[in-house]
Amino acid sequence: MNGKEGGHIVQRFDAQLGSLKDLVLEMGRLVLQQVRDAAQALEEGDTGLARQVVHRDRDINTLDMKGQELCLELLATRQPVASDLRFVMAMSQAVNNLERAADETKKLGYVVSRVYGENDLQPIPSLFQDARHMAASAVELLEDALEAVEELDVDKAVAVVQGDEQLNEAFHAGLRRLATFLFEDPRNVRHVIEAVFVLKALERVGDHATNLAEFVIYAVKGKDVRYVKAEHLSSGFLDAG
Amino acid sequence: MNGKEGGHIVQRFDAQLGSLKDLVLEMGRLVLQQVRDAAQALEEGDTGLARQVVHRDRDINTLDMKGQELCLELLATRQPVASDLRFVMAMSQAVNNLERAADETKKLGYVVSRVYGENDLQPIPSLFQDARHMAASAVELLEDALEAVEELDVDKAVAVVQGDEQLNEAFHAGLRRLATFLFEDPRNVRHVIEAVFVLKALERVGDHATNLAEFVIYAVKGKDVRYVKAEHLSSGFLDAG
Repeated sequence: MNGKEGGHIVQRFDAQLGSLKDLVLEMGRLVLQQVRDAAQALEEGDTGLARQVVHRDRDINTLDMKGQELCLELLATRQPVASDLRFVMAMSQAVNNLERAADETKKLGYVVSRVYGENDLQPIPSLFQDARHMAASAVELLEDALEAVEELDVDKAVAVVQGDEQLNEAFHAGLRRLATFLFEDPRNVRHVIEAVFVLKALERVGDHATNLAEFVIYAVKGKDVRYVKAEHLSSGFLDAG
Repeated sequence: MNGKEGGHIVQRFDAQLGSLKDLVLEMGRLVLQQVRDAAQALEEGDTGLARQVVHRDRDINTLDMKGQELCLELLATRQPVASDLRFVMAMSQAVNNLERAADETKKLGYVVSRVYGENDLQPIPSLFQDARHMAASAVELLEDALEAVEELDVDKAVAVVQGDEQLNEAFHAGLRRLATFLFEDPRNVRHVIEAVFVLKALERVGDHATNLAEFVIYAVKGKDVRYVKAEHLSSGFLDAG
């Protein structure tokens, strides 16, 4: 933290940075719960839970606006520099990404409503088998990313970026399985399209977890690693000048 | 602009804000060209042009990093407040959205390569009829959004937000037509899926144009309108305290 000012002001500033982090973590926990509930709604065909997920997205939008306001206030009143400034910018981006991850869970909620709601579509739960594993991985990545935010832990952040590669592979494997299913019985096209939406949404949740992790690296190391390949994120690379 | 400091410093700060805007506009023009080229590649089945679109995405990523650095430098060295601070934050978000719009054009490039590249897929150009109209609308929205950025023109920005509603309707109409096509002949499933990707990517370009417009409104009016319905964006609403 910025140590150029007197102790009293620095303390208050630290408290403000802390409350920004708290907001991000609170928002993150809500989004995590949304992913878990959306996955459970899909697993159990629970349209009531799916509606709750869709409805709760408003709370996350409220936190998004609150987060952006808090960042702006911090920038305007505290005028941070160096690592404090990077931290505020990283948290602003983290808020943005959490909101977008939540949007993906809302999409999952809509799929559950369409597939298991009152209509003429006979659900085929076996199509969502890959989704189950992907949801578990997405939850884990997001948990780890939030831990990386909480502890500003670069090693954990790097592990998230690298872990997302596996989720991406699972996504493509899932798509291939769905295509096979479709070739065998093209009449199931609507079901397959819904399953594609599900896999895509979960893959995007992983992407947003990765973005969170990248912002942690940026905040701590001052390096913009968004366009660096995951396998190059060794600590040697991050510590090079 | 911030008028609290002496004339000399203010002038230099204005110049820096101006160069940030120039970077956003330069990036915007590149993205606009990417949308146009991707649409043309699709229209003409031109895989060479499609490859160029994919390749040029790197230049846009470079501008993304440059833009974020410039924002950070401005925040750190100039410590702007009020409308200047909002302007910098809005431009930071604009850069982020332009990069994401460019990512969509890259996806279009990949579709063209898959559909018209060397493989066993016999292209069905009629499937891309809706894409032509949607591409024209997306280009127009992005042009108008960039004009709104250039002139910090709230009315133009509001028109973009409202115009995007029509693009969203065109997207859903296009999806319905593709579904009909699929029901008539399920063997074309791969073509239809590619066409869905195309419509989705164009719809997303419109969303990013809308985001740019929303950041203009935010920079000028200080109001976060991301969660306000388009029809409520009358100037009366925006001028209310």
